[in-house]
Amino acid sequence: MAAQITGAFFIGCRQVQSAERFHAINPATAEGIEPGFSVSSENDVAQACALASSVFDRYRATSSEQRARFLEAIADNIAALGEVAVARAQAETALPQARLSGEIMRTANQLRLFASELRDGRWQGLRIDPALPDRKPLPRPDLRLRKIPLGPVAVFGASNFPFAFSVAGGDTAAALAAGCPVVVKAHPAHPGTSELVATAIIAAIRACDLPDGVFSMVAGPANALGAALVANPHIKAVGFTGSRQGGLALMEIAAHRAEPIPVYAEMSSINPVILLPNALERRAEVLAEAFLNSLTMGVGQFCTNPGLLVALESPALERFIRTAADGLPQKPAATMLTAGIFANYTSGVARLRRDPHTKAVGVGAESQNPNCGQAVLFSVTATDFLASPGLAQEVFGPSSVLVRCTSETQLHAVLEALEGQLTATLHCDEADHALARNLLGVLERKAGRILANGWPTGVEVAHAMVHGGPYPATSDGRSTSVGTLAIDRYLRPVCYQDLPPELLPSELRP
Amino acid sequence: MAAQITGAFFIGCRQVQSAERFHAINPATAEGIEPGFSVSSENDVAQACALASSVFDRYRATSSEQRARFLEAIADNIAALGEVAVARAQAETALPQARLSGEIMRTANQLRLFASELRDGRWQGLRIDPALPDRKPLPRPDLRLRKIPLGPVAVFGASNFPFAFSVAGGDTAAALAAGCPVVVKAHPAHPGTSELVATAIIAAIRACDLPDGVFSMVAGPANALGAALVANPHIKAVGFTGSRQGGLALMEIAAHRAEPIPVYAEMSSINPVILLPNALERRAEVLAEAFLNSLTMGVGQFCTNPGLLVALESPALERFIRTAADGLPQKPAATMLTAGIFANYTSGVARLRRDPHTKAVGVGAESQNPNCGQAVLFSVTATDFLASPGLAQEVFGPSSVLVRCTSETQLHAVLEALEGQLTATLHCDEADHALARNLLGVLERKAGRILANGWPTGVEVAHAMVHGGPYPATSDGRSTSVGTLAIDRYLRPVCYQDLPPELLPSELRP
Repeated sequence: MAAQITGAFFIGCRQVQSAERFHAINPATAEGIEPGFSVSSENDVAQACALASSVFDRYRATSSEQRARFLEAIADNIAALGEVAVARAQAETALPQARLSGEIMRTANQLRLFASELRDGRWQGLRIDPALPDRKPLPRPDLRLRKIPLGPVAVFGASNFPFAFSVAGGDTAAALAAGCPVVVKAHPAHPGTSELVATAIIAAIRACDLPDGVFSMVAGPANALGAALVANPHIKAVGFTGSRQGGLALMEIAAHRAEPIPVYAEMSSINPVILLPNALERRAEVLAEAFLNSLTMGVGQFCTNPGLLVALESPALERFIRTAADGLPQKPAATMLTAGIFANYTSGVARLRRDPHTKAVGVGAESQNPNCGQAVLFSVTATDFLASPGLAQEVFGPSSVLVRCTSETQLHAVLEALEGQLTATLHCDEADHALARNLLGVLERKAGRILANGWPTGVEVAHAMVHGGPYPATSDGRSTSVGTLAIDRYLRPVCYQDLPPELLPSELRP
Repeated sequence: MAAQITGAFFIGCRQVQSAERFHAINPATAEGIEPGFSVSSENDVAQACALASSVFDRYRATSSEQRARFLEAIADNIAALGEVAVARAQAETALPQARLSGEIMRTANQLRLFASELRDGRWQGLRIDPALPDRKPLPRPDLRLRKIPLGPVAVFGASNFPFAFSVAGGDTAAALAAGCPVVVKAHPAHPGTSELVATAIIAAIRACDLPDGVFSMVAGPANALGAALVANPHIKAVGFTGSRQGGLALMEIAAHRAEPIPVYAEMSSINPVILLPNALERRAEVLAEAFLNSLTMGVGQFCTNPGLLVALESPALERFIRTAADGLPQKPAATMLTAGIFANYTSGVARLRRDPHTKAVGVGAESQNPNCGQAVLFSVTATDFLASPGLAQEVFGPSSVLVRCTSETQLHAVLEALEGQLTATLHCDEADHALARNLLGVLERKAGRILANGWPTGVEVAHAMVHGGPYPATSDGRSTSVGTLAIDRYLRPVCYQDLPPELLPSELRP
């Protein structure tokens, strides 16, 4: 497969070019990258959605094995994109080459994991209550349940994972596995990468002889395009990873359609990391260094970035702070994903700095290059933190706030005051276990994933992963966007009562 | 347990009386029934919700076995309510004694089924991915997933099932099983029945030594009370069965809270029944009689009432129509649940009658008694039906519309034009299977339960039941309100990463 960037978008397998164009911007140079990309119109969106709807019954009638092979074909094609895709993604995102190569493998492996989940069959949630014709006072009918796909799904590519949370990322993989056609809105910051991945999917559709319309990808810089996609009556669910503002806008559109639909928006999280006293006493310096690595990984542009530290006042905490302050200047500033993300980061940090109660513990190295995010750690007393809800708002990038508590009661109060989170992390030694156990109740209520003695950045693609959490971490804490359980967000149960065996879906036949 | 009606509502286990009172009305006589019932204030709602929230962690920390025993204790207490409850419910709803006795047993058995589901453990959805410390390039952490309860749940009692979909109905059983405290808003049409059931629950809380606040019940005639309940920040999910207007109002409130929450509203359904040609040819008369029984059962006041018949024109269809027309006058009018429901039914039927395209096939017997709903069947051509979307709107009561199609294409078009439904039914013989198979695609997209050769009224409480369906049958087609899968609506997944075994929930320990 020759990976070529032509500036097209896709209505089904058909490449479409339009006169109106937009360009990707290299954030490291602030210069545009050729070629120009075709801007999809709202009419293009409507066509893609109608096509997706028209092939829905045919696509969902494919067997699990057929869809598994389809996902594997996509995985193979994406893995084969190789250096062309890495180079293009690097130009569009400024993410390092090794990270992007790894992300491509992660994306391919994610598709393969869904293929194995399809073959396993657990996803269908089959349940059978056989007829009890002799039951008194009334016989019981034969009842058989399976889960079926919801319908065409709109997926929004995320800026921070140009492969793993984008055109063929977790939401697309889960929806295609479930039997839902997908209409992607490509993220306008990486249109070239998006086109390459789209061609990989379309080649797989052709190779697997699947209906034209199982996948489409529209593109353009305007929010109106995404709004039209979510409003389209053929769309039955939405997957989104991005800002809270963006997620809330889509939720509002979805809730006010003639037929409201589920929105799975992953929006914002500050991922509290709680440093318990004995762990801090035993390894304050090691924790501080590991924290700085997690904070600055990918210029802090992870949904799971540790944006909040919580600890009890102690001499060990002072050692942690000193080590962090000393280490920060060694952390180079690095290019952020887009000028917009950099501007938001800068103003978010300025807001924290302006707050009369915060104190800057330390800052990372500066850079004169464009769009370079400088790491920073603030500290604040728990009393001040509790009085200033704004300090708990996400600042997307390598910024974090350390909350200093004077008592366990205050530590509890800080955690209770938090909004919903993707993750919560405990650093604890055995001597901390009693306190840790006391905190688990509130952490379970606040977060989708609870870690011990690790860092939240790094989300394993696995069966037991939850990358989700209570609002506003996500719009719907009942699901995950990473791991095989994600397939559940695009399914609903159907019961078959007393159907003649030959009319039953094959997996439910006696 | 002495079942006494005192006119109280409950904040936790505390009986509360207020000066402001409302009365139940006996729909058969249109007269008030003593005693007056205390009206809850918005402050009472706030207290009940705060109490529920304060005991949430303690309640969810109970074992599955403890909660199973609690549900069984409720079941025993409800079964023991006996004739006092039947007599009171009969006065408040005009439903027949045998139906109400049966509904009490159904309600108790539903609680017992959730108890067995708790013991089974499947509801927790446990998943374990053990650590792979030697994996390259990176080790895999230990990941363990379980589902935990969402938090306090608001449940709205339904008018048409004073036991099975009310104070201790399916939503309450599912939420309590999941580990969620429940705040019920009693339906104002049967406050005495509601108080009796509430005392049964409270006696079980005391007997099982569970925290005061696991259950509360507020009451009053105003919609503002329910609105305050859904808006309360302690409430994390809502279960509702009622009108589309009511459900939409709650969805709107829930979507615009500072923290939006899931609403499971079961709202309206016309439950299409498709009479296929060979089945009709072989047994038109039998089908017509069975249809009339399903239509008029419980004065048509089932969410699953067959409000739409669809068939191809044929001499057999004429036989069906003739039999239905002949049989209808033998069907007595009977008292509906409330004056409001009767008024809505009357105006709904008048709307169908006024439509220039409908023809009345036949009407049931009249009655001069108050609030008596008279059965009626209309017919309309598929062409006219497709041109008049209003004809597909639910008329809650014993009214149905027969849509006459001239071709299979038209039959498909009629089904495609329908909104989401709780059920869809096929009457088919073997010779109809090819056509039936062609229809299954659209029926699966439209309905939560597909029946063959039966009638949709009658919803079995079972593992494989789905009482749900795409919007507007419900607000959330991803779940069911009947059957053990209903527990899933009040759960969300949490992942534990590398937690020391002693900090893990016991069911996830190695």
